[in-house]
Amino acid sequence: MNEVQLSLALDSLWVMLGAILVIGMQVGFALLEAGSTRMKNAGHVAGKQILSFAIASLAFWAAGFAITFGKGNGFIGTEGWFLKEGTETFSSLSWANVPLELKFLFQLAFVGVSLAIAWGGFAERAKLSVYFIFGTIFTVAIYPVIGHWVWGGGWLGEMGMQDFAGSTVVHLQGAIAALVATLLLGPRIGKFNKDGTPNYIPGHNQVYTVIGGFVLWVGWFGFNAGSTMGTADGFFGYVALTTNIAAAAGAIASILTAKWLVGKADIPAMVNGVLAALVAITAACAFVEPWAAAVIGAVAGSFTFWTSVYFERKGIDDPIYAFSVHGIAGIVGTISTGFFASPRLVEKTGIGKPGLFYGGGVDQLLVQTIGVLGAAVYVAVVSFIILYALKKTIGLRVTPDQEISGLDISEHGSYGYPEHLDPTYQQPPTVVSSRSL
Amino acid sequence: MNEVQLSLALDSLWVMLGAILVIGMQVGFALLEAGSTRMKNAGHVAGKQILSFAIASLAFWAAGFAITFGKGNGFIGTEGWFLKEGTETFSSLSWANVPLELKFLFQLAFVGVSLAIAWGGFAERAKLSVYFIFGTIFTVAIYPVIGHWVWGGGWLGEMGMQDFAGSTVVHLQGAIAALVATLLLGPRIGKFNKDGTPNYIPGHNQVYTVIGGFVLWVGWFGFNAGSTMGTADGFFGYVALTTNIAAAAGAIASILTAKWLVGKADIPAMVNGVLAALVAITAACAFVEPWAAAVIGAVAGSFTFWTSVYFERKGIDDPIYAFSVHGIAGIVGTISTGFFASPRLVEKTGIGKPGLFYGGGVDQLLVQTIGVLGAAVYVAVVSFIILYALKKTIGLRVTPDQEISGLDISEHGSYGYPEHLDPTYQQPPTVVSSRSL
Amino acid sequence: MNEVQLSLALDSLWVMLGAILVIGMQVGFALLEAGSTRMKNAGHVAGKQILSFAIASLAFWAAGFAITFGKGNGFIGTEGWFLKEGTETFSSLSWANVPLELKFLFQLAFVGVSLAIAWGGFAERAKLSVYFIFGTIFTVAIYPVIGHWVWGGGWLGEMGMQDFAGSTVVHLQGAIAALVATLLLGPRIGKFNKDGTPNYIPGHNQVYTVIGGFVLWVGWFGFNAGSTMGTADGFFGYVALTTNIAAAAGAIASILTAKWLVGKADIPAMVNGVLAALVAITAACAFVEPWAAAVIGAVAGSFTFWTSVYFERKGIDDPIYAFSVHGIAGIVGTISTGFFASPRLVEKTGIGKPGLFYGGGVDQLLVQTIGVLGAAVYVAVVSFIILYALKKTIGLRVTPDQEISGLDISEHGSYGYPEHLDPTYQQPPTVVSSRSL
Repeated sequence: MNEVQLSLALDSLWVMLGAILVIGMQVGFALLEAGSTRMKNAGHVAGKQILSFAIASLAFWAAGFAITFGKGNGFIGTEGWFLKEGTETFSSLSWANVPLELKFLFQLAFVGVSLAIAWGGFAERAKLSVYFIFGTIFTVAIYPVIGHWVWGGGWLGEMGMQDFAGSTVVHLQGAIAALVATLLLGPRIGKFNKDGTPNYIPGHNQVYTVIGGFVLWVGWFGFNAGSTMGTADGFFGYVALTTNIAAAAGAIASILTAKWLVGKADIPAMVNGVLAALVAITAACAFVEPWAAAVIGAVAGSFTFWTSVYFERKGIDDPIYAFSVHGIAGIVGTISTGFFASPRLVEKTGIGKPGLFYGGGVDQLLVQTIGVLGAAVYVAVVSFIILYALKKTIGLRVTPDQEISGLDISEHGSYGYPEHLDPTYQQPPTVVSSRSL
Repeated sequence: MNEVQLSLALDSLWVMLGAILVIGMQVGFALLEAGSTRMKNAGHVAGKQILSFAIASLAFWAAGFAITFGKGNGFIGTEGWFLKEGTETFSSLSWANVPLELKFLFQLAFVGVSLAIAWGGFAERAKLSVYFIFGTIFTVAIYPVIGHWVWGGGWLGEMGMQDFAGSTVVHLQGAIAALVATLLLGPRIGKFNKDGTPNYIPGHNQVYTVIGGFVLWVGWFGFNAGSTMGTADGFFGYVALTTNIAAAAGAIASILTAKWLVGKADIPAMVNGVLAALVAITAACAFVEPWAAAVIGAVAGSFTFWTSVYFERKGIDDPIYAFSVHGIAGIVGTISTGFFASPRLVEKTGIGKPGLFYGGGVDQLLVQTIGVLGAAVYVAVVSFIILYALKKTIGLRVTPDQEISGLDISEHGSYGYPEHLDPTYQQPPTVVSSRSL
Repeated sequence: MNEVQLSLALDSLWVMLGAILVIGMQVGFALLEAGSTRMKNAGHVAGKQILSFAIASLAFWAAGFAITFGKGNGFIGTEGWFLKEGTETFSSLSWANVPLELKFLFQLAFVGVSLAIAWGGFAERAKLSVYFIFGTIFTVAIYPVIGHWVWGGGWLGEMGMQDFAGSTVVHLQGAIAALVATLLLGPRIGKFNKDGTPNYIPGHNQVYTVIGGFVLWVGWFGFNAGSTMGTADGFFGYVALTTNIAAAAGAIASILTAKWLVGKADIPAMVNGVLAALVAITAACAFVEPWAAAVIGAVAGSFTFWTSVYFERKGIDDPIYAFSVHGIAGIVGTISTGFFASPRLVEKTGIGKPGLFYGGGVDQLLVQTIGVLGAAVYVAVVSFIILYALKKTIGLRVTPDQEISGLDISEHGSYGYPEHLDPTYQQPPTVVSSRSL
């Protein structure tokens, strides 16, 4: 291979690795969500992760990618169905020196994450059919529009919005859909008492929660560093560094906040703190200095715990805190570059302007705020219309009996943990262990 | 490094990543199989995955790799023991521009997968000693022969058989061995009633099953795309695309088929549908267009569920449906290129001819069919001889008492889940959680 | 990109992948340790893995990396706080052709592993606050000193010590700290009877243990092969080969040893045998031939099981056998190159001399022995001082009541497995599965 061929092959390898890591984050979400919910729903919660990534894979291939990155106008792309490429069809991604298939796989992985976040708001009570319908619509009519606005040549990108790997495009979007869903579905049976005070519904397996969180941390190197979509200068290493520092700061900030606010060093709260920090640094990772990454991660980790408690006390049952972890932190992260974007990194990436703390004025802050508001309003309105229509037609929620029995048995016909939950299951007769030391 | 050195180093990195991903699939198989079987066997089922990969690692290094890829005749290789290389020893792999160690590791990973599939048929009732003996023989005398025929310069490769990453070489082989084993072992105690009707023996943990399936999906990018063993043109990205589309189609096809056939959207069935689709696309991934990948995946995912139900009703107890998922789908996938191989991709890979649907006639279809039959017959005969000999000498199966107690306690001396299964285990006294919100 | 830029980008990609794999080993440790301990501590055991990697990330960034690799004297580095680089600040790593951020991330991953090993000795009884304090001190004042001695331009490196990826620097260090901790903490309640005989305290989930072990095996390709920190010649493939052979030999040697010594083919013992083999080959992987790797792996796997039984009988309660698996095997591996280092590989790496079995005399053996002793004494003394001071001030250990209740509820305020351990938890009413075949 000559230098030109080598460059393409090397960048391709990096994007392939990035796509693998980000698709692998589905494993993290499956563990995180299954661990954070109850045994009677565990097979469903984990399994719908595969189902929804499958739906996204086909729908984004058929249409979503074209709407996101295809040639079109400032609002949507209108060419490139089934990856069919004409002249300039995908010029919004021409800066990445890799084959179209890899651009698609990497971007598909992002939709998959956004959709995984959205499902958080549906947890433990939505009908299986809703996953098919809303998953398809989200992949072709919600995500691609915001994606186009910011990354596909649309109006927010033109304004210079800084969202390197998608605090807004991926995380805030998913979180807004989750919030709309959780409001339309209503709280789980037993979550609130008659006087409105919340009950603690613990997840059934903190080991899953922790492992899921750590798999996501690792996958985030693909998410953020991979978003360079190229290897020049090894700049992805810098992005990986800020990402890791933020995550670490988020872990420590959140466990200390939990200790301070509720008196206990809560493990799931720490995991959520890590994720919130990662969500926040996602927009900022290529624009800020390491010290700022630590600040952003700590703020997101700490603040998110506080908001998750706050929303719960206000009567909102967001079972795995999707809106706090991905929404609030997504906003924190997107806005953060308006303060922290450093001149040398803005120059390197060529996107937007330096932040307020570097004498850049409020320009970038304004752009970031407009981006957050624009995305939030669009996603909220469209999600509401779709989910409200579903609620009034096929219904969003299983029956109370089905919810109490659990979705594994009611929606899928078999327990996820039959030896624990099926009382007819016979364990083997006793044998005393012969192992000794 | 200059261009020549860079090419070698870059291809080496890709093959290293591929090997890591495919070796990592052992984690997926361990979770999938443990989740799909009962608690009393879980430590054994997961643990034998490590044991068998260890056996394969040593036996393939000593002899298996030489027989597969070493210089020899059309039937077996006869040089290259312990990777010792003379002139032209491994010329069958000379197209890959990477050090011999990496060729070995990547191919070892494939044997490991084939062996993992074979063990499916032994699940929950075979003696531990059988794993040592059959694992060694499979690695040196079964897999390498078929591997040589197709990939090592043997007669099937000479005929132009299209099996890009091993629907036949890896999956069908393992599945045939599993089928022979499951027939010789007989059904698990309690699987069938006196009138021959089957009982449902659920796996103990659907979260493991789902996570295992997803880890395999991710690992398959190494399996299929990695089989390019090079980075030129970023062609591996195309292979990854068809792989992902097939998997997605398989998930949706299988869950809908399950809903239709047995009335429930069964989660383990969906996981098996994903795997069947991946098995099928394994042969075809580099030869077919994306739309054909979707068809192949959907057919494999749907058909496999149907055959798994069918075999069970016919009195065959294949505990984790290894023969359906890897055998039937392996056949579907291998045959599929006879229909779907597209002229441009046949030209690109330089293997075989276009398929029937592209006006290629039945030539390739015939080659693919011969390949399937040849491999199936050889594996069935040799596996039968070995396992029958073992059955008549040391015995294949644990005693009924041991089977009822479970293999963890009977073969390994300690429960995999002592706190659940050992009735002498004392849980700590009650403490009421002080956490509140 | 031109050849120079391509070389840097390619090496950067390899180091990034290595860092991701080694950071991913934290997932393996979390599963391994959680599986090897009891349900009542599982959330804590898994969760502290995130906490401790977070602490290490910040402390190594602030100071640890500077002390390890910064310009200084033969004992410690004294420049490079917060990665601030002046002239020649990090010249000890100048041989690696990648950006500083990637050097940092890769080395950080190693500290994280060393710290994870150390925690093994604290398992199931140490206070959460101890993790914060000792974790920070270990990262800035213990690990960096040994790291500097061997890899940062210090006196052991000057002597030609062969420790390619850290049998001593990473594993023995962590293991010595674990041993000091386990001695100062004393055995878990119920571990020993009044007559001093040990009781078997089984881990609660062998599937976790196995999966954790396998994730570590896979991660070790990043650990050992990644330690080339470059792609030239694809030499990392050779390192991966010796690593894999050793692991395989360790698995088989340990399960056979367990069968022979205690009469049962113990699964956790096999997992520990794999890890011990990997620990041992870590120093030697780039210096020895494949056959020697098999010998080293088998010796480490077998010997480690024996020492774990021995220490237990002598009244030492090392809950997850950290000292045997990482300490004894770390010594075995470091010393092994004194026997097995092959001339061609010593020449290739340019480190030290050939071993005794190749006519190299006892020179290298002596250097390796000095390295082991120097590291062990330093870590033992400093760890003892710190932990003894903590014991006499804030205390190392939770109260007996807290230990009996478990750390999940006592240190973190919620059960890791509430549906199993919280007796107030109400499972749903019975539903009989409607699935049938």
